Amino acid sequence: MGAVRPLPDYLVRRYQGWKATTYADNRAWYRRLAEDGQHPRAMIISCCDSRVHVTSIFGADQGEFFIHRNIANLVPPYESGGGQHGTSAAIEYAVTSLKVAHVIVLGHSICGGVQGCYDMCEGRAPELEASTSFVGRWMDILRPGYQRLPAGDDAARVRALEKAAVLVSLENLQTFPFVETATAAGDLTLHGLWTDIAEGGLETWDPAAGDFVPVGRSSPP
Amino acid sequence: MGAVRPLPDYLVRRYQGWKATTYADNRAWYRRLAEDGQHPRAMIISCCDSRVHVTSIFGADQGEFFIHRNIANLVPPYESGGGQHGTSAAIEYAVTSLKVAHVIVLGHSICGGVQGCYDMCEGRAPELEASTSFVGRWMDILRPGYQRLPAGDDAARVRALEKAAVLVSLENLQTFPFVETATAAGDLTLHGLWTDIAEGGLETWDPAAGDFVPVGRSSPP
Amino acid sequence: MGAVRPLPDYLVRRYQGWKATTYADNRAWYRRLAEDGQHPRAMIISCCDSRVHVTSIFGADQGEFFIHRNIANLVPPYESGGGQHGTSAAIEYAVTSLKVAHVIVLGHSICGGVQGCYDMCEGRAPELEASTSFVGRWMDILRPGYQRLPAGDDAARVRALEKAAVLVSLENLQTFPFVETATAAGDLTLHGLWTDIAEGGLETWDPAAGDFVPVGRSSPP
Amino acid sequence: MGAVRPLPDYLVRRYQGWKATTYADNRAWYRRLAEDGQHPRAMIISCCDSRVHVTSIFGADQGEFFIHRNIANLVPPYESGGGQHGTSAAIEYAVTSLKVAHVIVLGHSICGGVQGCYDMCEGRAPELEASTSFVGRWMDILRPGYQRLPAGDDAARVRALEKAAVLVSLENLQTFPFVETATAAGDLTLHGLWTDIAEGGLETWDPAAGDFVPVGRSSPP
Repeated sequence: MGAVRPLPDYLVRRYQGWKATTYADNRAWYRRLAEDGQHPRAMIISCCDSRVHVTSIFGADQGEFFIHRNIANLVPPYESGGGQHGTSAAIEYAVTSLKVAHVIVLGHSICGGVQGCYDMCEGRAPELEASTSFVGRWMDILRPGYQRLPAGDDAARVRALEKAAVLVSLENLQTFPFVETATAAGDLTLHGLWTDIAEGGLETWDPAAGDFVPVGRSSPP
Repeated sequence: MGAVRPLPDYLVRRYQGWKATTYADNRAWYRRLAEDGQHPRAMIISCCDSRVHVTSIFGADQGEFFIHRNIANLVPPYESGGGQHGTSAAIEYAVTSLKVAHVIVLGHSICGGVQGCYDMCEGRAPELEASTSFVGRWMDILRPGYQRLPAGDDAARVRALEKAAVLVSLENLQTFPFVETATAAGDLTLHGLWTDIAEGGLETWDPAAGDFVPVGRSSPP
Repeated sequence: MGAVRPLPDYLVRRYQGWKATTYADNRAWYRRLAEDGQHPRAMIISCCDSRVHVTSIFGADQGEFFIHRNIANLVPPYESGGGQHGTSAAIEYAVTSLKVAHVIVLGHSICGGVQGCYDMCEGRAPELEASTSFVGRWMDILRPGYQRLPAGDDAARVRALEKAAVLVSLENLQTFPFVETATAAGDLTLHGLWTDIAEGGLETWDPAAGDFVPVGRSSPP
Repeated sequence: MGAVRPLPDYLVRRYQGWKATTYADNRAWYRRLAEDGQHPRAMIISCCDSRVHVTSIFGADQGEFFIHRNIANLVPPYESGGGQHGTSAAIEYAVTSLKVAHVIVLGHSICGGVQGCYDMCEGRAPELEASTSFVGRWMDILRPGYQRLPAGDDAARVRALEKAAVLVSLENLQTFPFVETATAAGDLTLHGLWTDIAEGGLETWDPAAGDFVPVGRSSPP
């Protein structure tokens, strides 16, 4: 494995700093997490995008969130048999083994995956339509969201598609029998969020309003 | 969607705190990340486990790492055509679109997915062998790692399997044509890590030693 | 150029060591930095003093900080036309071309430049008052900081002047039209720091407190 | 100062890590550096570019190098009287107060400042010719280097200009009376280097060869 190298120095130094501070201050808790096992309250499904930091936004520490991250925070529909479904495996483990109380889907602005899906559906990204495109085939999950987009300019439709990615995922989540069982029993609730990277905004899907609504209060001056 | 609810209050309050402090101090950077796009240095593939916090360990902030998290930090082998491969899509996007310089696979101790794989391969977890088990089918990716385990007691073999999960993923990574192209050109290096949750330890795969070796220095007193 | 010599051997050997280790582990990243250009998050203005290592203090690696270092980390006031202003050129390039999100001024204890300025203003360093003294004329930038010093003993006043050097620079920074434009738009924030070389302390200017306050926690035992 | 904010959290955490590790391990030395004053062996004049890390390349620690960094690692010619010359002040302090044994000018590849100078001299960058352009007026220092460029394609001439920036600075250094005095007495030598960011190469000006020659040995396999 000639392309495999040891960890770069700068990460070694940063790790050493963490070990001597955050780890040292929290050692008792990390040991207990190791001995007792994890008991996360929620599963979060977010995008791989480097600009989305779910633990930062929610002030979370080790043990709080079981986090799955994929391109465009997508959940495929339930399919029995065949294939290695990483996302479905993560959901199954969170709901049936860890028995999380919440599954939170977190979408975001300026998502490269959503933009690619939009371009592909508009016929402007033939390379994503190739059967060999992993990104293209993955983003096919979002095609039903594209079908429902209202008319408008591209920017507005892309933003709508970012939010549709959250809704499509919430709908697909409910096709999993173990999700249906848990929600019907009142043991699990689902939540949809969308965050604006530039402005630090956060919107939550409000079923009563039938729309995403801003969370909390206005920006500090 | 009756099971969908607005964001729980405790997360609303935490988000508001983040917005008034961390966001306010970093607003200029988050805006620039939104305008200029992300330029992450590395992709990190880690486990969904709530006890693994890669950004914390490495003192990382928004924009540094493109992070994919799945059960047991696994990379399946390259397969052309068919299926919605979330992990392969994330790797393709990171390597071909974002042109990350490093792909880092981060394994960890007491991994529930690895334990399940071990139990399944030992014949002690028939429920994971069912074709309908998403977790079982996902963990099939690690079966080649199980085949190579040395003899020993269960605890030692499970630990060895946690590290094998990193090596199998590094091997599978190198079956992707675009990974091969980038590493051959010197534009991408691969790195394997394993972290001990309880003790805060970190080991890196050292190709020269042919083994995982501890990173950095001993624990603080 | 008779005084020009090849690189001393001890530095050749150290460079070779770096090339075979750190460079080899990070080659992909350095190549990408060369191809894509730099996207540093922050500009840091610090002193030339050999005891100030900003990349070390912040665990930073290539590509993170655009660093200008001069005597006493000073920024002169904006002056249109005339003269070759190295500091002003560096700020202009960082803010208007690189569009950094932060400009951080880092002062430090036992600064020889600040001590010289203090002695000069106290009338004890006539050699620095000569028109031919580059150091004296450069340190004139800090005279407004001297004017505001509270009464007290020399040691306390020199320390206060070290911190005043940071504040004067922050004030002067805001006289540059392009800095004003970027901060007004929310695309740039300014930060003032002072570090204690001997004790490894770090203080940040807190606008709410109107004072420098210690960063982080107490010293390790 | 409404644009001034406290230090961003991620830098606070990194600093705390440094304090608990590197500082703790080196406290005795840093204290002695504070008490005895600095005794750096060399002054290094390098570019502000975030991709140039002189301490990393030379494995240097606190106390070794007095470092001045400006756009394109330039030294202006000696001028008596008038103006606030940050670079000249740094050189004066290093040579006359600290009595460094070496002044090393470190140039580098893909330098934005050098590229700007080239474009300006070619008549392709009118914005840099404006009297209000700090970068343009600063890069005027390199115009004599442009005059001497051999014919050739743009890429070759820009590279030659990067190296000319080192030579022009070495020449200008020798116009300072205190530099001349120190070199004539055998108390100071000057050195010119150029580093290739992408390939990690390093070349030193060899007066005997009348050219830059590679330092050390070939790359590791």
